[in-house]
Amino acid sequence: MEGDPTLRLRIFDLNCWAIRYLSKRRQERIRLIGEMLRRETFDLVLLQEVWSEQDYSDLKAKLGSCYSFSHYFRSGVIGSGLCVFSRFPILDTLLYQYSLNGYPYMLQHGDWFCGKSVGLVLAWGSQPLRPPPPPFCQLHAEYSREKDAYLPHRLVQAWELAQFIRHTSKAADVVLLGGDLNMHPEDVGIRLLRGWTGLRDAFAEATCFEGCEDGCTLIPNNCFTVKAELLPFPLGIRIDYILYKAISGFTVKCEELKTTMGTAPGMDIPFSDHEAVMATLHIQRQGEAAGATLGTAELTLADVVTEARTEVGVGLRAAQRQRYSTGRMAVLALLLLLLQAAAALGALMGLAAGQPFPKLSFSLLAFLAIGILLLATGLHLFHTMEVKMLQGTEEQMRMALRALHQRP
Amino acid sequence: MEGDPTLRLRIFDLNCWAIRYLSKRRQERIRLIGEMLRRETFDLVLLQEVWSEQDYSDLKAKLGSCYSFSHYFRSGVIGSGLCVFSRFPILDTLLYQYSLNGYPYMLQHGDWFCGKSVGLVLAWGSQPLRPPPPPFCQLHAEYSREKDAYLPHRLVQAWELAQFIRHTSKAADVVLLGGDLNMHPEDVGIRLLRGWTGLRDAFAEATCFEGCEDGCTLIPNNCFTVKAELLPFPLGIRIDYILYKAISGFTVKCEELKTTMGTAPGMDIPFSDHEAVMATLHIQRQGEAAGATLGTAELTLADVVTEARTEVGVGLRAAQRQRYSTGRMAVLALLLLLLQAAAALGALMGLAAGQPFPKLSFSLLAFLAIGILLLATGLHLFHTMEVKMLQGTEEQMRMALRALHQRP
Repeated sequence: MEGDPTLRLRIFDLNCWAIRYLSKRRQERIRLIGEMLRRETFDLVLLQEVWSEQDYSDLKAKLGSCYSFSHYFRSGVIGSGLCVFSRFPILDTLLYQYSLNGYPYMLQHGDWFCGKSVGLVLAWGSQPLRPPPPPFCQLHAEYSREKDAYLPHRLVQAWELAQFIRHTSKAADVVLLGGDLNMHPEDVGIRLLRGWTGLRDAFAEATCFEGCEDGCTLIPNNCFTVKAELLPFPLGIRIDYILYKAISGFTVKCEELKTTMGTAPGMDIPFSDHEAVMATLHIQRQGEAAGATLGTAELTLADVVTEARTEVGVGLRAAQRQRYSTGRMAVLALLLLLLQAAAALGALMGLAAGQPFPKLSFSLLAFLAIGILLLATGLHLFHTMEVKMLQGTEEQMRMALRALHQRP
Repeated sequence: MEGDPTLRLRIFDLNCWAIRYLSKRRQERIRLIGEMLRRETFDLVLLQEVWSEQDYSDLKAKLGSCYSFSHYFRSGVIGSGLCVFSRFPILDTLLYQYSLNGYPYMLQHGDWFCGKSVGLVLAWGSQPLRPPPPPFCQLHAEYSREKDAYLPHRLVQAWELAQFIRHTSKAADVVLLGGDLNMHPEDVGIRLLRGWTGLRDAFAEATCFEGCEDGCTLIPNNCFTVKAELLPFPLGIRIDYILYKAISGFTVKCEELKTTMGTAPGMDIPFSDHEAVMATLHIQRQGEAAGATLGTAELTLADVVTEARTEVGVGLRAAQRQRYSTGRMAVLALLLLLLQAAAALGALMGLAAGQPFPKLSFSLLAFLAIGILLLATGLHLFHTMEVKMLQGTEEQMRMALRALHQRP
């Protein structure tokens, strides 16, 4: 940056909703996204929910001439769905998988199978800026706002994301975070993430905004959104973000923020069920680091961490209850099996006259018991892991609170 | 460090082998370890395989007066088994769980259930050194040197560990890594880890060494080691390490390295089946960073990464074969079920005269098919994840190789 003291950076972020066989008009939309990206030439394109590697390859083939560098992050059973296209060389990547991500038996929600993660990309080899990591990610979806069983999981993810950013961005000049965070701007998870990392919200900071009212990214006007889910929010909700932060001797300003507004420009269908977020950032070298975000708001930060810790505690107690009840069920199934084995043994040794049960129902019962034993044991192991992770996060938050209170 | 230009740092590292109900004389050994640590006052104590939180609490109660700061890392079903005691404040912690860690169905090996991880600790708040992260960890165990089915998993772990260290240590002054790496010094995983991070081996660099021959940490003289496993290695093997690296304007020298030699000093039983490793490091501020480790050895590094990538490729093909065969088995079980359903339906609709099968064997067969279907589907999902992770690592290694070749 010595030669060129300012850098204008255009970022595109979109949850593409590209699930094979399930998402409507997927291929057409992927083609539209590719064409628009080729026309517009952003500097950095962050895409989520590109579940099919074929879609990524198609995009890569189409965009190769304008975005020379790209990466697809693999994780989980289905994949992370994250991919990035960049005009600057991608120097290195790192994937961090959240330790908690829903339940494998909630097949209809499917989060567990995705291996939701945050991907870290080091780019900017060609600029005399130290490589800034633009991590981008997707957090656990919210399926019901009233009875949000996944809130503790999402909070663990928000905390791990914040910790990941803190630990990997120490030597960076600028940090960018883009993605579908599945949280409303005022939610405790977002406040925790922003407070703990010092990231700023491009929508709140933008000098000039153009797009959906309140910056919403899931709106009733989009033909792919489920209208019933948006009933309590007539304007829609904002859950896709571009966040940023300058670390050492730089300032970042958001000059312009745009969202699509229910349809792709000049077309009759949208790119996705989410709206795209596009930011133009202005990065400038400065004498001293503008890291004042944390210091001034330390008291509020402690409140946010306390609130998040309480929610994690609620999740912890629920997980402990489930661990207990699945363990009890496994023990009961085992007892039933032992009882049956004893009865069968007794019958074999001629203790009982004739057979106490008809063979068929006897063996059906045994199979049922084995099935319940296996299932309950698996669930018990899973909830044991969940308990450990929630305890670990609660402990880390406690440590953070102590550090916050000890600061002068 | 401006006031005090040098720092002498004493580090203790031990795989404690403290598995409840399974490890011999566990409580006695934990008590011995605690007493010795209280007597000796190290600066940093890195313990692995402390599987029981009760053991950690006992140690913490005993050591609280001399090591004011400690942390226990939770992960997996059983836990990570990692804990740390420190004389310096622990500012922050981060746990990174390896994406691959053996197979859940290899119950006798148990690695999968441990959630093996690397723990990162930021300490040194009191010194004017920027917090250096001493991550410490345990990698997947090696169960057979001749037919090492876990080599690709261990290589993925070594790679992720190296990437984790690179990305989190950018702003540190000094990096320390201690732990049971489950790899011999000449193994490709160790060469990859050392080459890619620039970490130095305390044993190789120590000015003064005192301990088992060749620095071995699993020796036939220890009464808890399995002698048959060590038959090909009459001196024992070295798989526990303390590695270090100075990053910015510091030099680190290993003044002294010691290992225990089969028994705890002055006792007749050892601390663990592993020997403890104790290093005294001498850290000094210097004009320029001594980061020449990478540049000079870049050609060898490319060879190591290529070798590791080949092994990961071998693992990838094995995982793809297993994914295919489990998928095929699931499909066959499903076909059998459908066939049975058709037969039952036929019998119900009176198409066949009488019943084609006796009821009992018919329902037994159905349960068997359901069992196989569930099991095969689970395994198929697991191997799909394995394939993704191995592909991801191979891709990252490819990127690293390209970067290595492009450097002038």
